[in-house]
Amino acid sequence: MISVAFQGEPGAFSEQAARSFFRTRVQLIPCRHFKDVFRFAARGGERRGIVPIENSVFGSVHETYDLLIRHWLFIGGEITLRVHHHLMAMPRVRTADLRFVFSHPQALGQCEQFLRTLKNARQIPYYDTAGAAKMIREEGRMNAGALASRQAAKVYRLRILRRNVESNHQNYTRFIVLSKKATIPSGRPKTSLAFAAENVPGALFRALGVFALRDINLIKIESRPVAGKPWEYLFYVDVTGHSDDAPLKDALHHLDEVSTFVRVLGSYSVGRTVQG
Amino acid sequence: MISVAFQGEPGAFSEQAARSFFRTRVQLIPCRHFKDVFRFAARGGERRGIVPIENSVFGSVHETYDLLIRHWLFIGGEITLRVHHHLMAMPRVRTADLRFVFSHPQALGQCEQFLRTLKNARQIPYYDTAGAAKMIREEGRMNAGALASRQAAKVYRLRILRRNVESNHQNYTRFIVLSKKATIPSGRPKTSLAFAAENVPGALFRALGVFALRDINLIKIESRPVAGKPWEYLFYVDVTGHSDDAPLKDALHHLDEVSTFVRVLGSYSVGRTVQG
Repeated sequence: MISVAFQGEPGAFSEQAARSFFRTRVQLIPCRHFKDVFRFAARGGERRGIVPIENSVFGSVHETYDLLIRHWLFIGGEITLRVHHHLMAMPRVRTADLRFVFSHPQALGQCEQFLRTLKNARQIPYYDTAGAAKMIREEGRMNAGALASRQAAKVYRLRILRRNVESNHQNYTRFIVLSKKATIPSGRPKTSLAFAAENVPGALFRALGVFALRDINLIKIESRPVAGKPWEYLFYVDVTGHSDDAPLKDALHHLDEVSTFVRVLGSYSVGRTVQG
Repeated sequence: MISVAFQGEPGAFSEQAARSFFRTRVQLIPCRHFKDVFRFAARGGERRGIVPIENSVFGSVHETYDLLIRHWLFIGGEITLRVHHHLMAMPRVRTADLRFVFSHPQALGQCEQFLRTLKNARQIPYYDTAGAAKMIREEGRMNAGALASRQAAKVYRLRILRRNVESNHQNYTRFIVLSKKATIPSGRPKTSLAFAAENVPGALFRALGVFALRDINLIKIESRPVAGKPWEYLFYVDVTGHSDDAPLKDALHHLDEVSTFVRVLGSYSVGRTVQG
């Protein structure tokens, strides 16, 4: 059976993403840190990892990009989760009883407008959304609520007091699946890669030209600092197509000519979007 | 007198950056949130704000980019701080007494190797580096230390137990100065701007072409999601030159033709680097 590591407590959005991606039964392994997820997947065999890479409100997850380049893993797939946050508490607790609301700082931020309506409740940042729900159940707190997923309410037997309390209703998180071996995409393929442009004027323009001149669509570009080299950047791009097929194969040869470093992070099927 | 708002407690790195940027006497206003700094500067007159925009290890400060586009302020200058973290505690406390080390999660991350050598001390994330130092002084905690700046040790009268405990010794943070009115650069100018590319293949390539074709150096590029429009991006670039002078002036006209939105965030002098 495939085992899939994810960051967070049971009930985390990553766990939900893993369930939706692998439609068959898989063993789910909660991890404390993102790097633990990468290490687990790097052990190979039937092991996989799943990590968030981008949120439609907050942008890229930097840590994921930085860990991608430090491990020899392939991106084997992606799935997008429509994120909903719910206010939950112990059974019989009413919204008016709440003095504290615990959640991940990003979730608190996404629900700011709603939280302003809870006049007596202070926001308390917590390391994880599902972790906040877990703590409320374990400590049996009757004066605190958590903002977390439907799955977290189920796992920790909390009652949902208010559904969908996020302000921006266009909230999606995209997750990638990590695998020791490259996978063969079954659907429409896309490719993720990293490259370093030369430190001369026009270098990035020339690098992007290898795609533009071949009508290869650039889906996303992200720049990250190079460790130990202040103000030098590594670029991560997602493009349409498979790295073994023309025209992307030729574009990658061309990219090798005009950049100082190129690494293909994986060719995989464009992912589905599922309700969170 | 100029008043400068910064995020954090007295002794924060932003305060130090403000002191170094404005060599004359200025009034320094600590604020709880980045958005408070923007609001203060937006009131105009002699009011300014200073915020971090990029760290050489962790990359761009997303919140700053997102606030830049939501306010009508100009970037009036920049300064880069060499970041050093020091372990500090109440006088007479020894390193062996520490059971807890408080600091901002990024500072804890930057000092991970050193923290591993403190076998009995647990890392506790805190909202701010200087805030951690302040708490230790105010609560007179004899079993806890903080990772913060030299300035914080001075402000809160803590003793430095170990200097420069950060792992990556190439740690710089670049700050920008916010001003209601555009400034006239006295030194070598650079320009920051934001644009939205059309949602067609090659759009970003064409947009970057307006600079490359004129040999204008692209110093930095950053992409951020557009609020409410999943998977659409706004690009922020720093380029050499002043927006009122050729060739950048012509490049900006050209950029207007090939993109759906352009805004110049400011032309200002390339900043100095100072010791933090």
